[in-house]
Amino acid sequence: MPDERIDFLVHPDLKIIQSPSVFSFSLDAVLLARFAWVPIQRGKIIDLCTGNGAVALLLSKRSKADITGVEIQERLYSMARRSVELNGLGEQLHMDLADLKEAPSKYGHGTFDALTCNPPYFPSVHEKDFNQNEHLAIARHEIYCSLEDVIRVSSQLVKQGGKVAMVHRPNRLMEILAFMRKYKLEPKKLQLIYPKAGSEANMLLIEGMKNGKPDLHILPPITVYGEDGHYTDELKRMFYGEE
Amino acid sequence: MPDERIDFLVHPDLKIIQSPSVFSFSLDAVLLARFAWVPIQRGKIIDLCTGNGAVALLLSKRSKADITGVEIQERLYSMARRSVELNGLGEQLHMDLADLKEAPSKYGHGTFDALTCNPPYFPSVHEKDFNQNEHLAIARHEIYCSLEDVIRVSSQLVKQGGKVAMVHRPNRLMEILAFMRKYKLEPKKLQLIYPKAGSEANMLLIEGMKNGKPDLHILPPITVYGEDGHYTDELKRMFYGEE
Repeated sequence: MPDERIDFLVHPDLKIIQSPSVFSFSLDAVLLARFAWVPIQRGKIIDLCTGNGAVALLLSKRSKADITGVEIQERLYSMARRSVELNGLGEQLHMDLADLKEAPSKYGHGTFDALTCNPPYFPSVHEKDFNQNEHLAIARHEIYCSLEDVIRVSSQLVKQGGKVAMVHRPNRLMEILAFMRKYKLEPKKLQLIYPKAGSEANMLLIEGMKNGKPDLHILPPITVYGEDGHYTDELKRMFYGEE
Repeated sequence: MPDERIDFLVHPDLKIIQSPSVFSFSLDAVLLARFAWVPIQRGKIIDLCTGNGAVALLLSKRSKADITGVEIQERLYSMARRSVELNGLGEQLHMDLADLKEAPSKYGHGTFDALTCNPPYFPSVHEKDFNQNEHLAIARHEIYCSLEDVIRVSSQLVKQGGKVAMVHRPNRLMEILAFMRKYKLEPKKLQLIYPKAGSEANMLLIEGMKNGKPDLHILPPITVYGEDGHYTDELKRMFYGEE
């Protein structure tokens, strides 16, 4: 398709199809795919709002479990599906074009051991932004699914004791925690991402356990840029796979 | 009193009476006194669970407002009161021996612009620990007040738009947020304290606004010890007042 290109995805043997004008994976996906708990040898993982499949592809490097990616936009789904083929991962990864709100009836309640989601960050969208780039608007704004939809559906999809991991913005933390509590996902791990030393956090990673007992751990902070304006060594290792 | 000594409290002209066997101020108090919003020129501030008065004394360096400290233990109250005299701060600081649960009827609802509290961190206490050191057991465990008591009373004591700042442990964050929501204190600032690089957070600072609008900021992380096992430069500045 026009505008598309094949990029490396962290691991030197993992490639991803993306398009700057439609959707490109970002740091959020890389951090989420590292942060989430996954079953190693067997089981079922689902990635909601999978976009061009970055999180699902990255998880295949950490787990032998079956991985399902769900995306509502045909254009992004197509990129994700072709990236799976390009990497020869068709045995393990399966991409579906679907509305996540229908996922519980499609896959069944209590089906998955682990769930990841990089949902839209912004509650609403201006008509102008939507018209300018519909693909990006849908990926970034709660047009087809609200934060509550994402958390309700996530809770339905995982087993008792199953894990739900999400990346989001700190200013939504209170809502996230309220919905997690409402839908019986007990927060177990929280990690904050700071753009540079001395700045407020601009991203968070959170993982809850279905019907888990209260026991929250706050993991070490991650700082993205160093004093010199370049990625910190920690980030380089994560983003370029130098470890 | 036996066991008591006079120590410097961060500022070279601020002294505090304490006793290793009864109660000594710690990093928690110093961090809380820096973190909390205070009115600068006038107003009313209250410090609950004031212990030997460290937070209240430190706040007097940041604000000209009237400051009230509330402590339930006679022995600690006595140290706090004498520290106020020792520093010649009797005009600004007032220490009360009281149960915080009676504070709203004592001082009135909606009385204070800002409230600070370094409450007991642990929900319960073993009888053995209580018998070994009653003073420390009461300061550290929820014997005379629960976390819910602290947050309910705090919400009652502050004005509309007033601020409530607290230091606590990360594993209590979910409870703190649930009680803050219940008692209409909207979290506005959260800051996490990590003992060293690569470790989980072991302390948190949180501030809410009475009936405030949702808008949470997560401030830069604070790391206590460096690679060399000594306080980081950032901590030295806070703890020894080198700034």
